Amino acid sequence: MNMKSSLTLLLTICTFLLYSSAELDGSLTYIWPLPEKSSSGNDTLSVDPELSLAVGGKGGDSSIIKDGFGRYKKIIFKHSSKSYPVNKRSVFDIGILKIVVLSDNEELQLGADESYFLLVEKRNGQSIIGEAYIEANTVYGALRGLETFSQLCAFDYETKTVQIYKAPWYIVDKPRFAYRGLLLDTSRHYLPINVIKQIIESMSYAKLNVLHWHIIDEQSFPLEVPSYPNLWKGSYTKWERYTVEDAYDIVNFAKMRGINVMAEVDIPGHAESWGAGYPDLWPSPSCREPLDVAKILLLILLELYIACEAMIMVAMLANGNCQSARYLRMKKGAWLLDHNMTTKDAYQYFVLRAQEIAISKGWTPVNWEETFNTFASKLNPRTIVHNWLGGGVCAKAVAKGFRCIFSNQGFWYLDHLDVPWDDVYKAEPLEGINDTSMQDLVIGGEVCMWAETADTSVVQQTIWPRAAAAAERMWSKREAISSGNITLTALPRLHYFRCLLNRRGVPAAPVTNDYARQPPTGPASCYEQ
Amino acid sequence: MNMKSSLTLLLTICTFLLYSSAELDGSLTYIWPLPEKSSSGNDTLSVDPELSLAVGGKGGDSSIIKDGFGRYKKIIFKHSSKSYPVNKRSVFDIGILKIVVLSDNEELQLGADESYFLLVEKRNGQSIIGEAYIEANTVYGALRGLETFSQLCAFDYETKTVQIYKAPWYIVDKPRFAYRGLLLDTSRHYLPINVIKQIIESMSYAKLNVLHWHIIDEQSFPLEVPSYPNLWKGSYTKWERYTVEDAYDIVNFAKMRGINVMAEVDIPGHAESWGAGYPDLWPSPSCREPLDVAKILLLILLELYIACEAMIMVAMLANGNCQSARYLRMKKGAWLLDHNMTTKDAYQYFVLRAQEIAISKGWTPVNWEETFNTFASKLNPRTIVHNWLGGGVCAKAVAKGFRCIFSNQGFWYLDHLDVPWDDVYKAEPLEGINDTSMQDLVIGGEVCMWAETADTSVVQQTIWPRAAAAAERMWSKREAISSGNITLTALPRLHYFRCLLNRRGVPAAPVTNDYARQPPTGPASCYEQ
Repeated sequence: MNMKSSLTLLLTICTFLLYSSAELDGSLTYIWPLPEKSSSGNDTLSVDPELSLAVGGKGGDSSIIKDGFGRYKKIIFKHSSKSYPVNKRSVFDIGILKIVVLSDNEELQLGADESYFLLVEKRNGQSIIGEAYIEANTVYGALRGLETFSQLCAFDYETKTVQIYKAPWYIVDKPRFAYRGLLLDTSRHYLPINVIKQIIESMSYAKLNVLHWHIIDEQSFPLEVPSYPNLWKGSYTKWERYTVEDAYDIVNFAKMRGINVMAEVDIPGHAESWGAGYPDLWPSPSCREPLDVAKILLLILLELYIACEAMIMVAMLANGNCQSARYLRMKKGAWLLDHNMTTKDAYQYFVLRAQEIAISKGWTPVNWEETFNTFASKLNPRTIVHNWLGGGVCAKAVAKGFRCIFSNQGFWYLDHLDVPWDDVYKAEPLEGINDTSMQDLVIGGEVCMWAETADTSVVQQTIWPRAAAAAERMWSKREAISSGNITLTALPRLHYFRCLLNRRGVPAAPVTNDYARQPPTGPASCYEQ
Repeated sequence: MNMKSSLTLLLTICTFLLYSSAELDGSLTYIWPLPEKSSSGNDTLSVDPELSLAVGGKGGDSSIIKDGFGRYKKIIFKHSSKSYPVNKRSVFDIGILKIVVLSDNEELQLGADESYFLLVEKRNGQSIIGEAYIEANTVYGALRGLETFSQLCAFDYETKTVQIYKAPWYIVDKPRFAYRGLLLDTSRHYLPINVIKQIIESMSYAKLNVLHWHIIDEQSFPLEVPSYPNLWKGSYTKWERYTVEDAYDIVNFAKMRGINVMAEVDIPGHAESWGAGYPDLWPSPSCREPLDVAKILLLILLELYIACEAMIMVAMLANGNCQSARYLRMKKGAWLLDHNMTTKDAYQYFVLRAQEIAISKGWTPVNWEETFNTFASKLNPRTIVHNWLGGGVCAKAVAKGFRCIFSNQGFWYLDHLDVPWDDVYKAEPLEGINDTSMQDLVIGGEVCMWAETADTSVVQQTIWPRAAAAAERMWSKREAISSGNITLTALPRLHYFRCLLNRRGVPAAPVTNDYARQPPTGPASCYEQ
């Protein structure tokens, strides 16, 4: 009917006939990210749509387990239950999923144990664990096991049952890096709570575990700070804001999915929006950045973090860029003159003072790499250096004993739309770091979704599927995903995972488009675009 | 932090300061689509987060009402309930929403009564209905009233309560057209069930009431037909299919939201995919379209509609375009020779035969306009002509006594990305039809989301916000939305509605981009992009 159909007709005849008989490459393991160790067999097992949960261990009774099981049950049994005749129930191979959680410690912090063991096998009189079994040290490990279990389950359209192919499965799994992050920027464009939750949910599918929430920047200040009620007057509008309760809600929603929220308040540069509510914070009406160092110190240290205490892990991220520095140079404030400081001195003073206070509160300072590049020797040794400018920074940082997060903008800035999935996939946080004790200081990496040109309408397809490529890089063993031809070993699996995201309602974009988030160029299967 | 920030800095300073104090134009009514009649006042009423439902009337006990209320309560009270101190509860102005449904007839068909009356006012000892009250003849009218009620509710970030501004509200509302459709094409790209449900949910926000499900086309055949189990071998892959139960599930999901599903099986052209499972249906291996007329008649009439019986309203849509006709001309089959028919004769024979059978089953045939353009005098008078090729067709159709659906591709084909929101908005189904009895024959219109270049990753932002522009055109009074400067009267309201969609998790694109579904060009508020 569509005018375009005549144009695409000849092309699609071939594609269609070719693909209709396509099968998955049976030699690959369609679990994303790839587990550390897995073995499979040749059985096909059916899963009861009334699958029930049995728990064990000190941590098994957690609501995190119960809620997680409920979520995954909905995902696994998406097709209407009318598909399953009642009389077939008795013959399902898998009727119970048992989850054993050894510890009842639900603290979610950097390095929380995410390892798990997953077993799926045919009912067997001799087995004491039987059917489907997840064992983990923590609830968070169990959640990772649930995700893997859900990826083993596939709806079979012929039998209209959920089946697990290639059973028995024995999977022993844990992440390579403790920190596997995604940055969301809610200053350049406000993201509604619902949308942030959708993204958190999708992160859990790829086993990412840190939402780095870049709440505030120069364009808008959406967060409520109770003691300074005018600050969020810097929001774009009065409807584009987050209350303290919203922040709690998001942190709790993330925690239920084993995801840590690291809240960032970007200072002293990138903070123009603060002055909308408190114009005194601007050095002058014509020079709005960076904020007056003395005033901002008072504000930030006494009050803003009160609002952020909701966050499980609050990091201090201080930032100064050329832009800010230039402004500062143009307009030296009285404070600088009084203290006989250059702008560079003041920046350093600010960062170190903020670090001290963070440390005194038991927090870990995470600094964008500029502070390391400029005055590494002054930084507190507990500082985590967050790389972004380019390659080789983590190597330098860990050589000086600092921990490091890898976000090389050439590969892991998701707003760089011209980076194809395979460049994202191949970017290696340990590149150039050969000493194992130094390797241990690289705590992980993060893909960054800067939001200048990504609002609610496009943010998810800008994140996915490329964030998944980084997620496997950070979760799976380096040797398992770095050898061979990734077009054969990873690409079909990433296509499969992209379609899995789509089925779960996540609008992940075609994998192999020339630019990220481009629409498909013509009709075709999800599995080939 | 992002490299782009320096480029956008100077621009954003101005925008930000300008917008931060922006207020809505208080003279406009921020309800989309605009109600037929409404009056408002100057009160601000708070709504209890524990808002309870009271029902009345013969139809009040329906699960459609109960479920609808539950859905809208989640939408209205999206912010964490921690925002509402318990001791404030007693002072909320609106504690109960009463819904009275006069009829218990829940049949959902063309012309089902969607009118409603909505009242919201401060508690008043003298009022017998009080607070918040919806009255409707049917459950579907009540759902429209619930949507309007939800749009009156706004979360106020200062008081942290949901408030209704400009009360008391008296709204008397009904749609201008009975048929307000959206076409989804699941052949060019398969849409997972979850995604179809997301779209149905979003349709209800704009009071659209028909999902025209273009299930099958030449590229793929995703639907199960139980008696011909090989037909869905024409799906792209074995995971891109709909079971009969899925179809039931979707139809029921839509019905709960007052949305009719009109299933389309496009024949005899656009049906190449049928032959993947049954190669005999193709005229020959090298000529795959259109299907052999004799064979397809048998198939379609005996079996396919069995699968479609799940649909509340099954329409027959037959289609032949130039492409198909050309193929047919190139390869005259034995059937044509046996029956001494030209290809045109055969096409006409097929359509009329299908019409007869549809009518005999009590269905209403809806034909894409080609049948009307080619042999209008032969068509059954109950035929509904579905316009798509261009302007003036509905005028011709109603002049001959046929009913008509307006989908002029120059304005209402959503895959035409270069049509701006205001062209969509101004397209008028009654254009050129002045006689009121003829106007009555235009049952409505439909925006069409052809899916050659729209898959799960981009379908929603291609639909929204432009489908909303058409939705208001079809719902609201012509004179109310056609006069004045729509840049002042409609655009700010559409921006507001787009942001409402975003808040509800629907990735509606910026309103005023040069091309549909383009990302925003820079940082800004949702309300200005």
